[in-house]
Amino acid sequence: MHEDRIRLPALMDRIMTAADAARLFRSGMTVGMSGFTRAGDAKALPLALVERARSEPLALTLITGASLGSDSDGLMANAGVVARRMPFQSDAALRRKINSGEVMFIDQHLSETAEQLRGGGLKPVDIAVIEAVAITRQGDAAGIVPTMSVGNSASFAEQAAQVIIEINLSAPLALEGLHDIYLPARRPGREPIPLTSTGQRIGASTIHIDPARIAAIVITDSPDSPSNVLPPDAETQAIAGHIIAFLEAAVAAGRMGPELLPLQAGIGTIANAVLHGLTGSSFRNLSMYSEVLQDSAIELLDSGQLAMASASSITLSAAMHERFLRDIERYRDRIVLRPQEISNHPELVKRLGVIALNTALEFDIYGNVNSTHVGGTHMMNGIGGSGDFARNGHLSFFVSKSVAKDGAISSVVPMTPHVDHTEHDVDVLVTEWGLADLRGLAPRERAPLIIERCAHPDYRPQLRAYLEEALLRGGQTPHVLEKAYSWHARYREQGSMII
Amino acid sequence: MHEDRIRLPALMDRIMTAADAARLFRSGMTVGMSGFTRAGDAKALPLALVERARSEPLALTLITGASLGSDSDGLMANAGVVARRMPFQSDAALRRKINSGEVMFIDQHLSETAEQLRGGGLKPVDIAVIEAVAITRQGDAAGIVPTMSVGNSASFAEQAAQVIIEINLSAPLALEGLHDIYLPARRPGREPIPLTSTGQRIGASTIHIDPARIAAIVITDSPDSPSNVLPPDAETQAIAGHIIAFLEAAVAAGRMGPELLPLQAGIGTIANAVLHGLTGSSFRNLSMYSEVLQDSAIELLDSGQLAMASASSITLSAAMHERFLRDIERYRDRIVLRPQEISNHPELVKRLGVIALNTALEFDIYGNVNSTHVGGTHMMNGIGGSGDFARNGHLSFFVSKSVAKDGAISSVVPMTPHVDHTEHDVDVLVTEWGLADLRGLAPRERAPLIIERCAHPDYRPQLRAYLEEALLRGGQTPHVLEKAYSWHARYREQGSMII
Repeated sequence: MHEDRIRLPALMDRIMTAADAARLFRSGMTVGMSGFTRAGDAKALPLALVERARSEPLALTLITGASLGSDSDGLMANAGVVARRMPFQSDAALRRKINSGEVMFIDQHLSETAEQLRGGGLKPVDIAVIEAVAITRQGDAAGIVPTMSVGNSASFAEQAAQVIIEINLSAPLALEGLHDIYLPARRPGREPIPLTSTGQRIGASTIHIDPARIAAIVITDSPDSPSNVLPPDAETQAIAGHIIAFLEAAVAAGRMGPELLPLQAGIGTIANAVLHGLTGSSFRNLSMYSEVLQDSAIELLDSGQLAMASASSITLSAAMHERFLRDIERYRDRIVLRPQEISNHPELVKRLGVIALNTALEFDIYGNVNSTHVGGTHMMNGIGGSGDFARNGHLSFFVSKSVAKDGAISSVVPMTPHVDHTEHDVDVLVTEWGLADLRGLAPRERAPLIIERCAHPDYRPQLRAYLEEALLRGGQTPHVLEKAYSWHARYREQGSMII
Repeated sequence: MHEDRIRLPALMDRIMTAADAARLFRSGMTVGMSGFTRAGDAKALPLALVERARSEPLALTLITGASLGSDSDGLMANAGVVARRMPFQSDAALRRKINSGEVMFIDQHLSETAEQLRGGGLKPVDIAVIEAVAITRQGDAAGIVPTMSVGNSASFAEQAAQVIIEINLSAPLALEGLHDIYLPARRPGREPIPLTSTGQRIGASTIHIDPARIAAIVITDSPDSPSNVLPPDAETQAIAGHIIAFLEAAVAAGRMGPELLPLQAGIGTIANAVLHGLTGSSFRNLSMYSEVLQDSAIELLDSGQLAMASASSITLSAAMHERFLRDIERYRDRIVLRPQEISNHPELVKRLGVIALNTALEFDIYGNVNSTHVGGTHMMNGIGGSGDFARNGHLSFFVSKSVAKDGAISSVVPMTPHVDHTEHDVDVLVTEWGLADLRGLAPRERAPLIIERCAHPDYRPQLRAYLEEALLRGGQTPHVLEKAYSWHARYREQGSMII
């Protein structure tokens, strides 16, 4: 039974229930789990750990690729299983625990976790839990075939003393061959990463591991949680329109070919909508070098405009997920899934010249971006890979709707109370109102451009008044420090940033 | 005459006075000048441009490697020659013009200017002005031998319609062979940069250029301005001591070999002092992969502890400069000067695993660093290469004395009013009081560590009180926004941050 999924007969006796596998864990351990933007996460062990925590304390450091699906993060947080969490999350219950100080959350660039583990900057992983399509035989080694994401799984498998594999029967065997597993070597003596085009394969199709370290195999049969992005609306379509016009102008000016440079789009509704907007545009032979593929990427593959897509995860709506798995043979040659360290690697993002599209919570009149902290203090999800791409790519766009909460919050503020992306790393800001190209401009030049092009008209007079007062004080980046956060205070006290 | 310096006879008739060469400039042009941390800057043309601006308006965009010597930046700013300046400066007169809004200053990562020029994100360079030791014959091409810095000179020479070369007779011919000129290709199709060790040579020893584009050659004979770093003092020695103890512990724990990983040290007194502190330490066979070599690097080469040093510039005190030029044969095999795009390149900084030591103006209790803006608004010098190294290196240290202005300013504040390096990119903070290793810690864990280890004891009670009040409001990164900049206001109004 399961011979097609577990191809080393010697491993058959490692099959056990999730409850039995959960007995391997001890409070205080560091656990590395597969899962990236709700894709390819372990389905059974999180629940088994929650169950075990009912009878004895079990407080773990949990490292993943990115966010988990199946409410796992929330269930584990509420059960006290997660004491420390990195590098990303997007769960409402876990978020509450983080913001109340009950869970320590380390918000990291998604490319950095694996490097920090390798370099000894974090405590080593005790147990890895990795969802797999199958375990193959690779000479004397076992080969783990990941499911819909690779994330940090290869690094966890390399480092962990014990590895638990969840074989998910709902993940078709046809996923085999989609993945490309390459990890940088330790330093010193590291060689260049040989990747020079988005679709190139530079590693193995499975995660190689000594079978002796496979401590348990658990059989599951639950699909990934569907993506929860919203469909495009008038504002996101307008944002997409501004970006497309900007890129068309760059092509017309000869600064890029009609195939552009490889695209990256962050997780979420707006980035998905922007990419969706490319369907039907004049661009052809596009490529993606991104961390996640959403519905829009599949649409662009279907329209024939997207020639090749590289990422660390595929996160789709329920309908698109079903269609993708059914037609996977059609996509196989045009999609590569890589470790997130490689999909987000500074060396490769820089070499390829990625065009980065990421979402801002808010940005200020000088071009600093807050991607993570609501009101400057309360964590939303995390920085994710936005910094990996914005810092090192060829062009970095940050997009946002100009207002939130029916206009009570302006996304363009005098000063962001938390900075994830500095003025040095932000090239172009876009809202539904327009686009501000900040390249080559001093802060005093950026401010009027951002106000007039990006801010909601209702907020422009307030922003102009702030800038005018700030300019009286002088400086490279003029501010009225005692009023810099008055908008955030006004929202807190009066329910709106509007004066 | 000057046959040893100008080895293409056909170029002899391009020799002219600086005043004549200055006639090539038109108001509105973009000019790229050699010069990086006061080294290898053009000496004659800046003065000739100032002279020319007396008789007719001449407002230029001036791009350099980094800071210029010889008061050139200030003289040109005061004469109205500099309308727009990037990517770095450190001149008092220019700084005043920047902060008053008369000069537009674009504060860039030093690795990025060349890439932005290549990609068309900035207007192209019209005229390049490059200081050289000599012009050699390279087949049909001319080869420019740079002097004490490479900076962005190779990119300027590649792009500019016209190139003016200043042959500096005070720069000895023995400098020939010190440089390694390699530039990344345009995208798409860029290959990996083949460098895998600090001393490796991957390019040519000169900047190749079509002689037809050499519009003028000007002969000069003035040495570089000497470095203005201060000698180590008790505080900088204490900072060095903390860092050395930290690195010794990493070696003892087996996380690094006794040769460490390549070191980078920012320009200035504190970074120089830290490196100076390594002289006599237990470390052997060290290497540097940095943007500038200061006196301390030469001391470490002399002590035998530093095996190899790579940088884009050599900036020395007058006495050390003289000694270096006299004994250059002793150093030639152990120093490589590269374009700043390569010395600071994300791909290489990441691959080599650089240990980055940079100076903060101030940092906050959660680990955000302000490197550039005094009081949050007024430009000091610029971010320089600190972000290139901090983001992509193996370990990023930021150092500062705990107080400035005789204790009236605390370098540890509740919230920095300008962020150059986010919490995501700062690993270790150090003052004379101690060291805070922030890796793997959530913001709520970092704050007490930074306060108790790094802040001056006089300011610890105030910081503790702020944190206590902030914690009542909750969040991942607790703050009392309306009081976050009260310290800066108190200094402005009362002359001290002390309550």
